[in-house]
Amino acid sequence: MDTWRLKKTGFDLTEAARDGNRFLCANGYMGLRGTVEEADLAQFPAITLANVYDRCGDRWREPVNAPNCLFVRLFLNGRELKLKDKQTEGHSAEIDYRHGIYRRETDFGSLRIGSERFASMAEIHLLADRLRLEIEEDGELEILTGVTTVIWDINGPHLYGAAFTAGEALSCRAVTGEKGTVVAAAQCVQADFDADESFRQEDGCLYRVLVRRVKKGEKLTLSVFGAVCTSLDGETPAQTAKDICLSAKKEGFDACLKAHKDAWEGIWARSEVVLEGDESAAQALHASQYHLNCIAPRHARNLSIPARGLSGQTYKGAIFWDSEMFFFPMFVYTQPEIARSLLRYRIETLPGALAKAKEYGYRGAYYAWESQEGGAEGCTNFNVVDVFTHRPVRTYFRDKQIHISGDVAYALRSYFEITGDRTLLEQGGARVILECARFYISRAACRPDAEYAEYADVIGPDEYHERVTNNAFTNQMARHCMQSALKLEEIFGDDPAFLRSLKRELNYEKDWELLKTLCGAIRKPVKRDGVTEQFDGYFALEDCSLETVRGRLADPREYWGGDHGVAGTTQIIKQADVIAMMALFPELFDDEEVDANWAYYEPRTEHGSSLSACMYALTACRTGRLNEAWDMFMRTASIDILGGGKEWAGEIYIGGTHPASNGGAWMIAALGFAGLTMRNGVPEVHPNLPKQLKRLRFPITSGGRRYMVYADREGGRVELL
Amino acid sequence: MDTWRLKKTGFDLTEAARDGNRFLCANGYMGLRGTVEEADLAQFPAITLANVYDRCGDRWREPVNAPNCLFVRLFLNGRELKLKDKQTEGHSAEIDYRHGIYRRETDFGSLRIGSERFASMAEIHLLADRLRLEIEEDGELEILTGVTTVIWDINGPHLYGAAFTAGEALSCRAVTGEKGTVVAAAQCVQADFDADESFRQEDGCLYRVLVRRVKKGEKLTLSVFGAVCTSLDGETPAQTAKDICLSAKKEGFDACLKAHKDAWEGIWARSEVVLEGDESAAQALHASQYHLNCIAPRHARNLSIPARGLSGQTYKGAIFWDSEMFFFPMFVYTQPEIARSLLRYRIETLPGALAKAKEYGYRGAYYAWESQEGGAEGCTNFNVVDVFTHRPVRTYFRDKQIHISGDVAYALRSYFEITGDRTLLEQGGARVILECARFYISRAACRPDAEYAEYADVIGPDEYHERVTNNAFTNQMARHCMQSALKLEEIFGDDPAFLRSLKRELNYEKDWELLKTLCGAIRKPVKRDGVTEQFDGYFALEDCSLETVRGRLADPREYWGGDHGVAGTTQIIKQADVIAMMALFPELFDDEEVDANWAYYEPRTEHGSSLSACMYALTACRTGRLNEAWDMFMRTASIDILGGGKEWAGEIYIGGTHPASNGGAWMIAALGFAGLTMRNGVPEVHPNLPKQLKRLRFPITSGGRRYMVYADREGGRVELL
Repeated sequence: MDTWRLKKTGFDLTEAARDGNRFLCANGYMGLRGTVEEADLAQFPAITLANVYDRCGDRWREPVNAPNCLFVRLFLNGRELKLKDKQTEGHSAEIDYRHGIYRRETDFGSLRIGSERFASMAEIHLLADRLRLEIEEDGELEILTGVTTVIWDINGPHLYGAAFTAGEALSCRAVTGEKGTVVAAAQCVQADFDADESFRQEDGCLYRVLVRRVKKGEKLTLSVFGAVCTSLDGETPAQTAKDICLSAKKEGFDACLKAHKDAWEGIWARSEVVLEGDESAAQALHASQYHLNCIAPRHARNLSIPARGLSGQTYKGAIFWDSEMFFFPMFVYTQPEIARSLLRYRIETLPGALAKAKEYGYRGAYYAWESQEGGAEGCTNFNVVDVFTHRPVRTYFRDKQIHISGDVAYALRSYFEITGDRTLLEQGGARVILECARFYISRAACRPDAEYAEYADVIGPDEYHERVTNNAFTNQMARHCMQSALKLEEIFGDDPAFLRSLKRELNYEKDWELLKTLCGAIRKPVKRDGVTEQFDGYFALEDCSLETVRGRLADPREYWGGDHGVAGTTQIIKQADVIAMMALFPELFDDEEVDANWAYYEPRTEHGSSLSACMYALTACRTGRLNEAWDMFMRTASIDILGGGKEWAGEIYIGGTHPASNGGAWMIAALGFAGLTMRNGVPEVHPNLPKQLKRLRFPITSGGRRYMVYADREGGRVELL
Repeated sequence: MDTWRLKKTGFDLTEAARDGNRFLCANGYMGLRGTVEEADLAQFPAITLANVYDRCGDRWREPVNAPNCLFVRLFLNGRELKLKDKQTEGHSAEIDYRHGIYRRETDFGSLRIGSERFASMAEIHLLADRLRLEIEEDGELEILTGVTTVIWDINGPHLYGAAFTAGEALSCRAVTGEKGTVVAAAQCVQADFDADESFRQEDGCLYRVLVRRVKKGEKLTLSVFGAVCTSLDGETPAQTAKDICLSAKKEGFDACLKAHKDAWEGIWARSEVVLEGDESAAQALHASQYHLNCIAPRHARNLSIPARGLSGQTYKGAIFWDSEMFFFPMFVYTQPEIARSLLRYRIETLPGALAKAKEYGYRGAYYAWESQEGGAEGCTNFNVVDVFTHRPVRTYFRDKQIHISGDVAYALRSYFEITGDRTLLEQGGARVILECARFYISRAACRPDAEYAEYADVIGPDEYHERVTNNAFTNQMARHCMQSALKLEEIFGDDPAFLRSLKRELNYEKDWELLKTLCGAIRKPVKRDGVTEQFDGYFALEDCSLETVRGRLADPREYWGGDHGVAGTTQIIKQADVIAMMALFPELFDDEEVDANWAYYEPRTEHGSSLSACMYALTACRTGRLNEAWDMFMRTASIDILGGGKEWAGEIYIGGTHPASNGGAWMIAALGFAGLTMRNGVPEVHPNLPKQLKRLRFPITSGGRRYMVYADREGGRVELL
């Protein structure tokens, strides 16, 4: 078994959306969905751009898809050769995880096509595709390659005023509706055969038309180079795109491919987890690391990663807490410059968080639940469409998921603790922590006649239960955030002027005193038989099985959460919540307590989010539930192979890749199975290997030093490289 | 036009439920729905008992319906004479508001029947019905009269183990399922004709069978006496019921009727509002006063009145804030002993309110939203059934409608201010006010960094908007409750020991200090252009018309409120909220402000509750919007003539009479049109008569003195009687 490859035979239109995710190529700048070259809109083809957003009318703002510059259509003797909606043989597609290469093979009878394609990791604007055609029937072959603005959009259209130019490099230049961002795509080709070339513009597409008489047995190779640039990258995006195409053509496909593969080898050298003992697991872990690595913003210093990566426009292309909780760990340990970028995104979007807190009548920083460019809140008040009435449903994710600010502060502090690098705190990180802590001061509610403070009317990680009080996770995140603010005094013990001046600038003196008292006054959760109550009143909810709850669905696509949902009034939860807290704060809970909570909550968890299984697996490793941990790991790591996960929230398509699971897979392997921790800036391992695993090996970076971590059935060790 | 009568010709089964309400007879002890004697369950016949509740399985607890002891069936020559499902002529029914007498006339062709029936206001256990039969066809007449346990129940059955006895008085004795309360009904008859008498028991019914040969032209009269007693009334309810029946028979129908009418004359002497200028209005006001007077608990000293009166089992027979806000005013001004009973009910159910506060983690008294016997909360967490999924929907009426405690305290203070009678405060009322104020202390939320306190996550009078913060009405009610607590110091200025000892007993010293600071710190509402924002964020909700919102309904019976409802996310409100506050606290707002709020909110109000129009009318009187006030008055006063109002909440039948509107009609006439107020214990009038009205005259009682209030177009006066 080649653990670096995923290959699938046959094609089914109903699986096309999943295939687009499964076979995604991406390089952090853009994502090229894994659809065939000739795909029409029914297959959801897209080149999704990072950090370019547009809002069309009053629909949701979402990432912009570029004009498709790798569009290829084939006609032999006047018949178009197109993948059928259902094709059980004669077609296969694969993704090469090692080098991020998509390949397809299709036998149309009269012609066989094979292609390999990538989004260059060496030149982020470049896409390249090499097609090999084997002719099985004499006649006239017509190849249309071009740039098309007929592209899949969920809440589009986003591109207006498309202007095309023909030539050696074709180009298309359009602007987005909301902000007038120029999006340009170019394309050129290199053929190893002669053909008549002409150009045809129709239906929002500029085609390059190659016509040639062909004979059975002939083999032709055509390389297509595409490039995408926007006005966010520079002043003349259309010209730059053309230049990049032509330059790639000049270098040739093989040279481009080599540069791309070399870049990937560099990534793997820093991050590859070598897993021995189970090939499916190794493949799944490769898939996970591939999918997370390919969407990392290596080209930027201040970008984060959307919750569905670059696999499309779902989840509005927004940055969620997934970034800090699930993407951050792999990067901070293997490629800390990417972790820094994720956090700089938060530092630079502090103004948006300050504005959001103010909007709700609070002080400090309340980060967007779905953060788009500049930290603008992308989450609306109506995030679900009711399947029965087709009306939008008021949801409270935007208003009430206050743990987000604590999540940001948690990652900022972790970054310092894992890397020993204080510069990020100095360059805005400390300010963010202080402003987040200030938010928790102002969001706290104190009863006039009681000693404690509480967080009422919040949503914890388990989104099925909206508007709860004293969510244990949220209270702990708030407490930790406030503790982290106070901790800055110690972190900057050698430079008290820094903190003093920052506090002065932020007018923070009074808040600092409040922090000291509030920190210890936040309500502790209720416990029953050692089990932490997820929020006030949770134990009083109907305690029924997942199957019972599922059995109450009146429509398979209806939303489970909120007061109308089947789960909202029961103890069934969407995802790890108390267990997430225990995974993130292992030092606060002993093994017995973690185990009791695991035993209680796991059967009550739908795992309806890709953020769930990872937290359960991490805690299961700790308490020796290694079979369960293994199952959770496989579920987490395989998600983008199986293409599972929820694809609908009410009537809204939410499918895509699952970077949080991808990051979770690394977390389970490294932090769970290998038991990696940092103690005073030095990595340690305490392996908890399930029986299926023989050994693990992976590199990490910390404090400027590189290490190799080894874990096997006898124990573990960390070697300085 | 006879303004004391409502007569209706024809019959339609689809209107039977409404007719049952329209033609209700009641005497505070029980309500006899206005259905014909022979009605089967499709017509919703019932004898609904006050203060007897039962819960069947896990369904809602609701009032118990007694066995029907006025059941009569007629057979002529073997054919049953029964009202048809649709009968446009040959049938009429009427209610006599002056004396609470139901009459029906039906021409079956072969026989004409006329009856008059009442629930005795002189002997509360007694029901009496006199039937006059005119024979139009020779043959054999069979009359079945009896006691049947085949009765309409919404969430039944409630009666078990029915035991029947035959004799001069028939009886039926059964026990309720939950608490084993004995419910007994008896029946006897007096005929002016001879007949063969026998008894027949079948299908849960014991019949007295009278058989007689009849001739065309014969006229027969049969009086049926029914009596209902329960074990809450005494030890031998079945025997007592029989004794009452037989005693009534001995006295005769006419004597019973006279005693009943005399009792009603006494009620009218104390409460009748004489309205001149519009006969429809006079009739509607008679209807309103009748419907409220007939359900007053004159036989008890500590009962209140359910929100649907005694018209059936809807609203669980529970006591709502309607009692204090809408029933209380007419009674406190006309029959203060009834007002005292309503308030003693609250005083005696304080333990239930203390328990409810504790259940939610608060101190003090949190009254039940739907209060049943002993103050037990009848409101469930699922008060609506979704029409699309047929699943119960989580609603927050029980948890969040915290203004209820303030409403109770408001009425207690009003009672003292209107009557000058301090005894109720001494006998538990002051304790209730202090405990309610304590609840508002503990329910308040203070921000660590702000000076004010707020009430977050509440529901105000407008139930369509659940879980809002700083509802202006609620904040004002809480503030007023705390002020009333502090006011006790002044009220008991001549007896400081009383309050001192009460505070000591309640361990109230610390709370007393908190009251003083908190009272002034409760967040004031936001105002925009003089309009008070109903709650934080209300103005930011979608501002669309009532018609737009109605147009979004996907099912006519779906619930409008909550996050799923069509109104919940818009500015459309169910009922007066800010305006209710302004009506209840006129001294806090000047005319201009009231008018600005009226103009803003009225078009945004669905008036989907019978509690709405009255508040709008009262404020409209004040600001000279007399045409609008007139319309609202007519709408309010006519509700139980028209039989309108909402009859469905989701899939739940909520029809019945509308005592809150009935009380509201009196309030508009007396407090609005006549402009009655109390100033230092002395009544004053400042009439605001709409052009349709010539004059008003009504008696009131205050401070042990009786007055007649006059209002006409020239002005008003109060005369001591």
